[in-house]
Amino acid sequence: MGHHMPREELEPFFSPRSIAVVGASRDPSKAGYQIVLNLKAKFRGKIYPINPYADEILGLKCFKSVSEVPDHIDLAVISVPADTVLKVVEECGLKGIRRVIVISAGFREIGPEGAERERKLIEIAKKYNIRVLGPNCVGVYVPKTGVNTTFLNPSKMGFPPEGHIAFISQSGAFGVAVLDWAAMRGLGISKFISIGNRADVDEADLLEYLVDDEDTRVITMYVEGVENGRRFVEALRKTTPRKPVIALKSGRSEAGARAIASHTGSLAGSDAIYDAVFKQTGVIRAYGMEDLFDMAVALALQPPARGKRVAILTVGGGSGVMATDAAIDLGLEVPRLSDSTIEKLRRVLLPIASPYNPVDVTGSARDEHLIEAVEILMRSGEIDAIIWIPYFMVPGITESIVEKFVERVKKVNRELDTPIPIVGAATGGEYTWRLASKAEKMGIPMYLSVERAAKAVWALYRYGEWLRRVGSFEEYVEKFRKLVGM
Amino acid sequence: MGHHMPREELEPFFSPRSIAVVGASRDPSKAGYQIVLNLKAKFRGKIYPINPYADEILGLKCFKSVSEVPDHIDLAVISVPADTVLKVVEECGLKGIRRVIVISAGFREIGPEGAERERKLIEIAKKYNIRVLGPNCVGVYVPKTGVNTTFLNPSKMGFPPEGHIAFISQSGAFGVAVLDWAAMRGLGISKFISIGNRADVDEADLLEYLVDDEDTRVITMYVEGVENGRRFVEALRKTTPRKPVIALKSGRSEAGARAIASHTGSLAGSDAIYDAVFKQTGVIRAYGMEDLFDMAVALALQPPARGKRVAILTVGGGSGVMATDAAIDLGLEVPRLSDSTIEKLRRVLLPIASPYNPVDVTGSARDEHLIEAVEILMRSGEIDAIIWIPYFMVPGITESIVEKFVERVKKVNRELDTPIPIVGAATGGEYTWRLASKAEKMGIPMYLSVERAAKAVWALYRYGEWLRRVGSFEEYVEKFRKLVGM
Repeated sequence: MGHHMPREELEPFFSPRSIAVVGASRDPSKAGYQIVLNLKAKFRGKIYPINPYADEILGLKCFKSVSEVPDHIDLAVISVPADTVLKVVEECGLKGIRRVIVISAGFREIGPEGAERERKLIEIAKKYNIRVLGPNCVGVYVPKTGVNTTFLNPSKMGFPPEGHIAFISQSGAFGVAVLDWAAMRGLGISKFISIGNRADVDEADLLEYLVDDEDTRVITMYVEGVENGRRFVEALRKTTPRKPVIALKSGRSEAGARAIASHTGSLAGSDAIYDAVFKQTGVIRAYGMEDLFDMAVALALQPPARGKRVAILTVGGGSGVMATDAAIDLGLEVPRLSDSTIEKLRRVLLPIASPYNPVDVTGSARDEHLIEAVEILMRSGEIDAIIWIPYFMVPGITESIVEKFVERVKKVNRELDTPIPIVGAATGGEYTWRLASKAEKMGIPMYLSVERAAKAVWALYRYGEWLRRVGSFEEYVEKFRKLVGM
Repeated sequence: MGHHMPREELEPFFSPRSIAVVGASRDPSKAGYQIVLNLKAKFRGKIYPINPYADEILGLKCFKSVSEVPDHIDLAVISVPADTVLKVVEECGLKGIRRVIVISAGFREIGPEGAERERKLIEIAKKYNIRVLGPNCVGVYVPKTGVNTTFLNPSKMGFPPEGHIAFISQSGAFGVAVLDWAAMRGLGISKFISIGNRADVDEADLLEYLVDDEDTRVITMYVEGVENGRRFVEALRKTTPRKPVIALKSGRSEAGARAIASHTGSLAGSDAIYDAVFKQTGVIRAYGMEDLFDMAVALALQPPARGKRVAILTVGGGSGVMATDAAIDLGLEVPRLSDSTIEKLRRVLLPIASPYNPVDVTGSARDEHLIEAVEILMRSGEIDAIIWIPYFMVPGITESIVEKFVERVKKVNRELDTPIPIVGAATGGEYTWRLASKAEKMGIPMYLSVERAAKAVWALYRYGEWLRRVGSFEEYVEKFRKLVGM
């Protein structure tokens, strides 16, 4: 297949003007019903349900086949029994449709018969110059354009808002669960792509597309195993100097690899090889769903760290200690501050505060103590990143701390040569999470525990280290500053 | 101090009939106001605000001193400036009050002057045979009796429901943040105790109390450093054969230990020593807040595992692979099942299901597939614990799966010689969490990710291993079965 202009080739998957849903159904238990329902919710282009036995589906005029549709169709979403798929793709080709998502299962994942069907699918696609996503996938979700080809009942799941994180998932079910979780967490997505059997469009194509996608700042992926290792490595090499890539690769263990074989029929490959590839190409490896997105949120909202020296600014002493442990466990440093910085902190903090590192403003602190202290730390030149532990529930910290704190951080960062990344940890309940969410919407990633905040800082350090190694730190930071107005 | 009858000695801290709040205030910015407010919310005994300058506080008649109160007082909560505390404790002694919580700070944690004050405090307490909790603490929270001496504004934080987990915290701020988080998560607490400077009542006393506390199934603790190591070890030794103890010990790193020294003035001690003590006494060590309570919920709701063989029962293939990786990473096993078990599974599952381990019922599964499969796994004799990954959002899984699944698990467990523990992983949003919470209320601990579920199973294995080592596995399981009706 041609892989030369991924941007133009793949764009219609994400922002088509018209979509045909082949296998659209009036039966709510069918994927073909839910796809139309999910598309109708937000997509503003034209939707053409295709079903030979229906006149209308969910209020939309229905067509017997794609050839009957009077307009041009940018994208066909195919959800028909496997043995009908080839015929439908042929029809799509004749109609001039050049982008197809095959939702249907019953291909390589079921054995030799399915593999043969998949080979034919690609043969037909080549004949008509069609790019295929899938088969055996849930397709794409793009909040910005409203394209949503997932087929689960929207009463049972939520969809996340527009944001800066792209997510490529080899597992459809896991991908959908993540979308649902992301919706609850308020985590913004630029593009979600379920690649299924990736008979045509694969991880490498998507990396080449996403590296130039303006809406995507961070690329996350769930990987069980890749097919074309060389192309994958090349694509990663071209991507990571410009955008962070975080990968959750499963099948680390022998038992896990065996499980992959029995569920997809594909080989996981040696984990040591993946690990080496990730290290050599600057991919950050995640070890779980929360880990993957905790790091992604940090990289989407904050600049990379120039070094590993972390300052901890806390309202609670115990949390400061735990944050220190967590940072050290990850190979970061929590250095002592210089006498002159300690003296500056002492001047603005309460007498009972501890002006060392962790800087413990204590539970008696007021908003201004955190705000003055963060500026002193940022300007000190002695640290590369900050973990902020605000304890919104203590009496002296008001609701307006968030705006005031974030504004000060932004102001100082605009004045510094290298911006200092900052993440927050806010253990607590609803009031705390209302304020934490506000802080995150304003640009400071917030986590439920100091351990997760420390891991987020580690990702900022790790990516910064990679950028310095490949010589693109300054360029990346410059671009990032423009993006976020920092 | 006498440590012989911890149950009788400490009970009045948790279920007093009458409480005096010395330093009660009409000023909402003062701790003495919030304590009265928090007590009034749920405590059904008598509350006596003590303040020489007020007639009434929050609708309660106020007294000039404890000596003026006409009734007996079981517990005094003291929140006055540090230099007044000694006088107040003396008055408490004269009044016959034998349990005192000193909220006030300004003791050992501030240096030599405070240490001298603390010494005198204990001298007075000894003279009157008073047991003291604190000073420099936030006291206790007991949902069952409504005793709540925390002093943060309830509009800024929530309080968790009644449950089976006791939490002893050396850090007051962290303790309160955990309560707030637990409220949001729906995690039930039996007793929360903030020990502060633990001038008198310490971890060992509380372990001796909690081991016999009927409402407590699991003891969790946040520890920075203990004073009387020998007594602590003795108390742990007596506790862990009867109840699981999970400890989050901070100051693991040198930088963390330094942070402890600067925030409490106490020495963290060598982490290697703590680690050895925990291993020798069967304490399960946690490495973060979520880790601590993830494991605690599992041990509160499920029996310990007899071995390390884990079955994974999943609706999503990818999640099954990730759960396998996570289990193996923790030293657990995900064994192949026997041919006869595979055959039994094959008979009840869909043809496309994968009847190995992980048992992948696929996204096309219906409720009965999960329910029949779990029974086959439980009765197989080939596994010691189960991770259940239900994917509540797929079409064939209904809302009633939770009741049906939990009932089947309970029924089978009642018939087995050794019950099989089971935990769930449900990545998803609001609908998923509504069902997951229901499952957890019915007794199956549920986690947001497979990694956390695997860690929970590890804790059940780890505690089971300890019980077998000290010879109390059968006795513990027998008692646990009665407790939960299993």
